[in-house]
Amino acid sequence: MTDVIIAGIGQTEVGEHWDISLRDLAYAAIREAIRDSGRLRPQALYVGNMLAPNLSNQAHLGVLLADHCGLTGIEAVTVEAAGASGGAALRQGYIAVKSGMVDAVLVVGVEKFTDQVGAGVDSALATTTDSDFEAIQGITAAGQAALIAKRYIYENKVPANGFAGFALTAHANGAGNPNAMFRKAIKPEAYAKADMVSDPLNMFDIAPVADGAAALILTRADLLPHDYHHPLVKIAGSASSVDTLALHDRHDPLGFVAARVAVEQALQKAGITLEQVDFFEYHDAFSIYAALALETAGFAARGEGWKLAADGSIAPKGRIPCATMGGLKARGFPGGAAGVYQAVEAATQLRGGAGRCQVAGAKTGMIESLGGPASTAVVHILRTD
Amino acid sequence: MTDVIIAGIGQTEVGEHWDISLRDLAYAAIREAIRDSGRLRPQALYVGNMLAPNLSNQAHLGVLLADHCGLTGIEAVTVEAAGASGGAALRQGYIAVKSGMVDAVLVVGVEKFTDQVGAGVDSALATTTDSDFEAIQGITAAGQAALIAKRYIYENKVPANGFAGFALTAHANGAGNPNAMFRKAIKPEAYAKADMVSDPLNMFDIAPVADGAAALILTRADLLPHDYHHPLVKIAGSASSVDTLALHDRHDPLGFVAARVAVEQALQKAGITLEQVDFFEYHDAFSIYAALALETAGFAARGEGWKLAADGSIAPKGRIPCATMGGLKARGFPGGAAGVYQAVEAATQLRGGAGRCQVAGAKTGMIESLGGPASTAVVHILRTD
Repeated sequence: MTDVIIAGIGQTEVGEHWDISLRDLAYAAIREAIRDSGRLRPQALYVGNMLAPNLSNQAHLGVLLADHCGLTGIEAVTVEAAGASGGAALRQGYIAVKSGMVDAVLVVGVEKFTDQVGAGVDSALATTTDSDFEAIQGITAAGQAALIAKRYIYENKVPANGFAGFALTAHANGAGNPNAMFRKAIKPEAYAKADMVSDPLNMFDIAPVADGAAALILTRADLLPHDYHHPLVKIAGSASSVDTLALHDRHDPLGFVAARVAVEQALQKAGITLEQVDFFEYHDAFSIYAALALETAGFAARGEGWKLAADGSIAPKGRIPCATMGGLKARGFPGGAAGVYQAVEAATQLRGGAGRCQVAGAKTGMIESLGGPASTAVVHILRTD
Repeated sequence: MTDVIIAGIGQTEVGEHWDISLRDLAYAAIREAIRDSGRLRPQALYVGNMLAPNLSNQAHLGVLLADHCGLTGIEAVTVEAAGASGGAALRQGYIAVKSGMVDAVLVVGVEKFTDQVGAGVDSALATTTDSDFEAIQGITAAGQAALIAKRYIYENKVPANGFAGFALTAHANGAGNPNAMFRKAIKPEAYAKADMVSDPLNMFDIAPVADGAAALILTRADLLPHDYHHPLVKIAGSASSVDTLALHDRHDPLGFVAARVAVEQALQKAGITLEQVDFFEYHDAFSIYAALALETAGFAARGEGWKLAADGSIAPKGRIPCATMGGLKARGFPGGAAGVYQAVEAATQLRGGAGRCQVAGAKTGMIESLGGPASTAVVHILRTD
């Protein structure tokens, strides 16, 4: 089978887009991706979205977006896997192209979180936990992450402000990304005095909910336009795995088993080792998830993921650059779009077009999209020659 | 590529299941499907669901169900395309197996509509229309169908009670299906005096929202257990297409273009003609949609679909038996599960196990799952040798 190529990429700025509808937001990213691909016409659309039925009173996004973009006649569905919806939509698009059943696929992640504020978003986000046994008790996404962080700090004797490096790196990198929600580096003192949100996680340990859309055109290498002028970025590996939904059902709350399994499988499918990965876009919805992502991927021993943030290993010139364009923390976390942003950013890096965020000589990037505390994990490995 | 086989089928009775949770409802169908397949172990789960984030406060169903069924470690996502969610989930499962990337897939459709009543369900259903331009004006799913039916009756001079045959056939067939919500034949007089719901559609023109779950195990023919004892039911064709979302954007509100395109493509992929189709499970959420499904598939000329119901052509011994186990009207309409029920019922027919509902000598069945007024259409053709 020929390689699946990310032929086109598009994205909107991440932020608070109260002045633009969900469909127009998606259209902006889709138009850019189609243009970028050399005007490939997709036959299928996979929409990654998390909460539009709740927050925007709009389901059936496949038709909504295909219609709005002049693509009626193609096939179109929404793929939902909580915070991993974007990664899951990418994976379905990848499978469709790899199968040979369609020639070109459009993957779009879109989310509008900020039309509603505060409790509305928290309640909607809580529908991605176990509703009957967790949400009904009042747990929130941040509450779940805080429980995990407490245990992690206790088991591993993490010092005060031990997670600071994740936010500092993300914000330093976001400063160079014109599409990031926050484009300002922060200082350790700012982290140290930030308001507590869900003890032990402060404001800088938690990625901001945001609005945004990102899009990809996938096709097979032999179907690219003759005048295609970008370096080829191929999807070398793709894998996904799920764990228990409720945190209380985990034998090991710090295990993030689904993330470990998905990374192992994706590397195996790509036929590479972890040492060949030049940068890692993790799902830093919460700093503790970034720490666990580093450990379960194999970049750090158990209990030592936080040290890679503290010692500069995840910085652009470190051992394994992470959140290279700001991550969820500084680029912003637009729900089901996040996983697609990761792919757009990784492709930008591999094309050598990341500007101030560029990881020098990057040939292989790994992206990981999580739903809940790695209840779902989707991992893709992108490569260029 | 080898054929994709429906190796296992499972379903719950359709009805009002206030006493059982969404996950337990799905589990009952999943357990039956896995047993029926000879205990194949799926590597991927595709959940067809329409409104659980709204009606059950539960998103992230892939993990919920994989976890509840002891299947953590596999991959799992929800596929949403309004009323066509079940058909769309089946299509994603089919693509995954056909691609060779997974050996066995579990497809489950599940919906709980009746925990909420009246306006709650109507509002939730309205999120599948164009929220910004239709739902906000107060349109409901039944209202949309009524607008189409009015035009259809006007253009085609349909007499009073012209749609009665759809409900009469569905209820007569449902009487023989132990899993149907309504198992009682109705008389023409009952139809004639039924309460109007959304003029010109009366109570019997509208399928009842219901709770239910249905499940399928898909695999490749060469991977079936050695002692597999069911007749082989293969997926010979699969296709999907979308139209505009808003009804007011259609050039031809009676055209149901997406349904026409999906049928044409599915027949072409299966390499058969319409004459070879022995029975047709259409999406009779509203009787008018059944009439248009018959026309756009090619079983009737434009404007004459209703006559096939009036003259007995869709009866079990007619030219093209439809809704053979009750259809959405009598088996019941459990949202995102409906398309999976269609596949379970078609496989039952092709195995020759439909009991009193059996279509004699059936070798080829076509199933069509619609989202909205054929805003999404998904068609599958199932065959046995």
